[in-house]
Amino acid sequence: MRKLLDGHNLEDRDWLFGLMLQSPLFNPRERGGKVFVLPDYNQSMEQQREMTLKRIQYLSERGVFTGWLTSRGIESELRMLAFIDVLAIFDHSLSIKLGVHFLLWGSAIKFFGTKSHHDKWLRDTENYVIKGCFAMSELGHGSNVRGIETVTTYDSKREEFVISTPCESAQKYWIGGAANHATHTVVFSQLNINGSNQGVHAFIAQIRDAGNLCPNIRIADCGHKIGLNGVDNGRIWFDNVRIPRENLLNSVADVTPDGKYLSAIKDPDQRFAAFLAPLTSGRVTIASGAVYQSKIGLAIAIRYSLTRRAFSVTPNGPEVLLLDYPSHQRRLLPLLAKTQVSQQLLLYAMSFAANYLKMIYVKRTPESNKTIHVVSSAFKAVLTWHNMRTLQECREACGGQGLKTENRVGHLKAEYDVQSTFEGDNNVLMQQVSKALLAQYIAAQKRNKPFQGFGLEHMNRPCPVIPSQLTSSALRNSEFQTNAFCLRERDLLNRFAAEVSQHQSKGESKENAFLLSYQLADDLGRAFSDRSIFQTFIEAEATVSDLPLKNVLGLLRSMYALICMEEDVAFLRYGYLSTNNAAAVRKEVTKLCSELRPHALGLVSSLGIPDAFLSPIAFNWVDANSWSSVKN
Amino acid sequence: MRKLLDGHNLEDRDWLFGLMLQSPLFNPRERGGKVFVLPDYNQSMEQQREMTLKRIQYLSERGVFTGWLTSRGIESELRMLAFIDVLAIFDHSLSIKLGVHFLLWGSAIKFFGTKSHHDKWLRDTENYVIKGCFAMSELGHGSNVRGIETVTTYDSKREEFVISTPCESAQKYWIGGAANHATHTVVFSQLNINGSNQGVHAFIAQIRDAGNLCPNIRIADCGHKIGLNGVDNGRIWFDNVRIPRENLLNSVADVTPDGKYLSAIKDPDQRFAAFLAPLTSGRVTIASGAVYQSKIGLAIAIRYSLTRRAFSVTPNGPEVLLLDYPSHQRRLLPLLAKTQVSQQLLLYAMSFAANYLKMIYVKRTPESNKTIHVVSSAFKAVLTWHNMRTLQECREACGGQGLKTENRVGHLKAEYDVQSTFEGDNNVLMQQVSKALLAQYIAAQKRNKPFQGFGLEHMNRPCPVIPSQLTSSALRNSEFQTNAFCLRERDLLNRFAAEVSQHQSKGESKENAFLLSYQLADDLGRAFSDRSIFQTFIEAEATVSDLPLKNVLGLLRSMYALICMEEDVAFLRYGYLSTNNAAAVRKEVTKLCSELRPHALGLVSSLGIPDAFLSPIAFNWVDANSWSSVKN
Repeated sequence: MRKLLDGHNLEDRDWLFGLMLQSPLFNPRERGGKVFVLPDYNQSMEQQREMTLKRIQYLSERGVFTGWLTSRGIESELRMLAFIDVLAIFDHSLSIKLGVHFLLWGSAIKFFGTKSHHDKWLRDTENYVIKGCFAMSELGHGSNVRGIETVTTYDSKREEFVISTPCESAQKYWIGGAANHATHTVVFSQLNINGSNQGVHAFIAQIRDAGNLCPNIRIADCGHKIGLNGVDNGRIWFDNVRIPRENLLNSVADVTPDGKYLSAIKDPDQRFAAFLAPLTSGRVTIASGAVYQSKIGLAIAIRYSLTRRAFSVTPNGPEVLLLDYPSHQRRLLPLLAKTQVSQQLLLYAMSFAANYLKMIYVKRTPESNKTIHVVSSAFKAVLTWHNMRTLQECREACGGQGLKTENRVGHLKAEYDVQSTFEGDNNVLMQQVSKALLAQYIAAQKRNKPFQGFGLEHMNRPCPVIPSQLTSSALRNSEFQTNAFCLRERDLLNRFAAEVSQHQSKGESKENAFLLSYQLADDLGRAFSDRSIFQTFIEAEATVSDLPLKNVLGLLRSMYALICMEEDVAFLRYGYLSTNNAAAVRKEVTKLCSELRPHALGLVSSLGIPDAFLSPIAFNWVDANSWSSVKN
Repeated sequence: MRKLLDGHNLEDRDWLFGLMLQSPLFNPRERGGKVFVLPDYNQSMEQQREMTLKRIQYLSERGVFTGWLTSRGIESELRMLAFIDVLAIFDHSLSIKLGVHFLLWGSAIKFFGTKSHHDKWLRDTENYVIKGCFAMSELGHGSNVRGIETVTTYDSKREEFVISTPCESAQKYWIGGAANHATHTVVFSQLNINGSNQGVHAFIAQIRDAGNLCPNIRIADCGHKIGLNGVDNGRIWFDNVRIPRENLLNSVADVTPDGKYLSAIKDPDQRFAAFLAPLTSGRVTIASGAVYQSKIGLAIAIRYSLTRRAFSVTPNGPEVLLLDYPSHQRRLLPLLAKTQVSQQLLLYAMSFAANYLKMIYVKRTPESNKTIHVVSSAFKAVLTWHNMRTLQECREACGGQGLKTENRVGHLKAEYDVQSTFEGDNNVLMQQVSKALLAQYIAAQKRNKPFQGFGLEHMNRPCPVIPSQLTSSALRNSEFQTNAFCLRERDLLNRFAAEVSQHQSKGESKENAFLLSYQLADDLGRAFSDRSIFQTFIEAEATVSDLPLKNVLGLLRSMYALICMEEDVAFLRYGYLSTNNAAAVRKEVTKLCSELRPHALGLVSSLGIPDAFLSPIAFNWVDANSWSSVKN
């Protein structure tokens, strides 16, 4: 099962876990006879940043990053993605600081740069001799990259670009690595050639030299944050900073020595889209990371609920307790079981979805870019939302213990809260998904051609019919489940298209019509995501031949499908399920819960998080809290 | 409007806000020409604890706590509750450390103790000479107080009680104040007299003397937490600690010098219930505090969204941006407006609910205890859940700025996460609410008497009928709204009673039958809470005669009612609303949003949070982030 969930590079992952366990830099602590690693979050942000840097240097010396930028091919990309998963299991700051350096700065050089840039920068970046950051967002413009206000002009006499921050809202903001450690940055800026704006382009600028700020660079700290305090986010002002002409990353466009602007992509929109490409890899790692954080939370919360229950029957106190305590537990357990078990089960679907996303990403072609964009947007939003919800429920299920930083679950919420808005606000991403689906719909209608792509082929088949009386076995049937998901997506896409066109017929612009239909757009985005995730589950299930495993996966798949139906009110609102059928779904969820409860511990063990990366309450928490443990 | 929301002691509140603004202890900082106060959360927990203590001492010297324990009457209780609201607006640790000292330790002396205890302890407590804590929960037993394992025996020779921690799971856990500052504690313990257990009783024990631990007391730290790091939560072990016989808090039961156990309350269940009474005041302040935190979050998020929008039309950058940026904002705003405005509107209902709860609490009588217990349980759960949701949406609406600690919204989430599980786990509280309603139902049925109490009188009237076609004006009619809430509560109570009795007829115990019906219990708890909160809204509305204000309140009330109907799937699941009517509700919510949007800033200004207690992004965030501001 672990192989199915982790998907790839299991041995590499274990090697890296081991590497972290070997060094005191990862802050090992003994609790109740077991060793746990976790950063000391009681340190000031300044201390946490220094520790993150030291950990990166240790990992770099051990060869963890070898090939991250200089090797090519699916194998090395998967190895890197696996390592990022593993590093994030230890600490989000560690994975983010590395993500900025390798996936933003490094990818920018790789994708926007050409051979001379690769030759000059990639090896030093991989060896962490150069420390890169990625100056895209500004105080006034976050998600709206197109609106950034930094301006770069060209001085043909000196063959240099001149970068400037024209106003306070143009200061670069949230730049990871900028506050303390980065030596270089990619700067996103409007490129103004002879008074004509060519749109957003990317440049390389050095910001520190031997630890000192370079001339005409001003930097300030972003300050204390609710999480990620091990990352030194900073703000940058450019005071007519001069850089050589060669520092324009010129894969998409170039400026000749005498100042002529040249671009292979004539359409400014397409040119701009090309510059957002590295953010796709960001969304892939965020989506995958979200699943691993849910795994940590659930592994801890479920183990705690099982040990806490076991403990209550150990006769330690006066007899009345022994009689009393289990009854109290019985009062709590159904609630816990419902939320925890069902969250856990959703987790399997999320794992398969993340693996699918990683695979289409590493196998990307120019033709698949659009699909990757839409799927990564949808999955990033759904998986990160799901992660926050899972962590919240895990925290509450652990009661007060969930609030102790060393127990991780509560702390992870603050660390990962950023997920839902960075590299694209989730709500905006979901609206973009619906917009993309609508474009497909209009294209298919106009050309009177069948749907192709985004998994919408089911729209070409007759509309599925849901039986009026759903039995238990019907509810667990994958064909019914597929039909229910397809029916919802099809109907919502039809409704959405109709509403948008109705608004347009009343004279609204296309843009406005879309805005006014945002409720249906939300519903549709969710329908698309659920159906796509469900498909990855069906595909993962098909690869398994071991019968007991296949049976459990079948239960998990049904649980995922039925919980989606129970939780999205659209099934009732638009009549895909009658109230009778909805009641049958609700009942079946409870039944599935009890069938899956005996597997809970087994399933938790297959999540692939080593004990040392969980927390004391996941094991013998009485020993971990004993007086003798205080003395250690 | 502010008077309506704050409800009481407006001048006292302003005086206390002013007192905090006068002292450097409250960490004032200038940002963009405005001063803001907020603790420095980048300090280690040790530093934060010392700062909290210093702030308390400052407030104590200024007379803030005068009369909190030594005065009696509604006036002085309301003043205290107002002050707790205000202190929590500055910092949760400050209000919690004070709450433990005054409302837990102080109330225990007051309510469980008798005259000699009052004379001996209350004045020194009020003056903060004695620093008290409240040792109730243990490692092994949190919400299940009855199961605690600490044991106290009586030594009649020396006329002393002997308190002991018999096993590691009996260590007192999460005791606020115990780790560093408390000098005394109330200890909850099983009382064992001559081998017979008399259940849980409360004792006074000294734990520190002139800064040193007392003999036979061991204390350890609970460590770093995800919030509330300014509170020194600790763990206590008692090694046969001897206390004088007089230290039993004897209002409910006593032990004679020669060791006889005497109690006015014979039934151990009732005796135990008497000991939980101080937790009611905890729930009242938690519920009220939750509303104020939502106010902070919304005041910041709404002001930010308004200023951010305003900023986008200032021409700072190249022209393309000027054209481009507003369209991007238009794309975002409907989403923001929907969540923020609707959350804000719910907030008004929550304010009225909290004020109602405070009033029934300060006017409490022995007869109203049961109602206060049920209402405080329901409102504590609903208001704290709502607070977490509001803060999460505010954080996301502020984007990255919501993650900066100085901007408060994101940070408050971690600070207040504890709300949903302390002083009663929310899920457990809601189940207790449904259980209490069921008991009323059974009592009314058995005696064939009308319903009385908990607002269930509507059950005596004929079942309301919802029109099959709801027009806009019908939807905004308070009678229809009341009917919809009553219909749902009535039907769910009937269904719940039927399901429990069906399980019992199949041989399940009453307890088990209740457990198996937990889904209906959840639905019913929510129905009761929404209907009760709605009633407080109607009552608050009735006190207003100013017409424009009354009109706005009418819109707010309709918004609250319709959002409840839109969000609780029970309305569709059980057919209280047809799909057509549900669609009408959804449409009307959108309409109400746009009608209320012009009032947004005005409404925010009436929330009663002084500017200095908000954050830089609520005002001119460009100035607050400018380079000149860095130099300050």
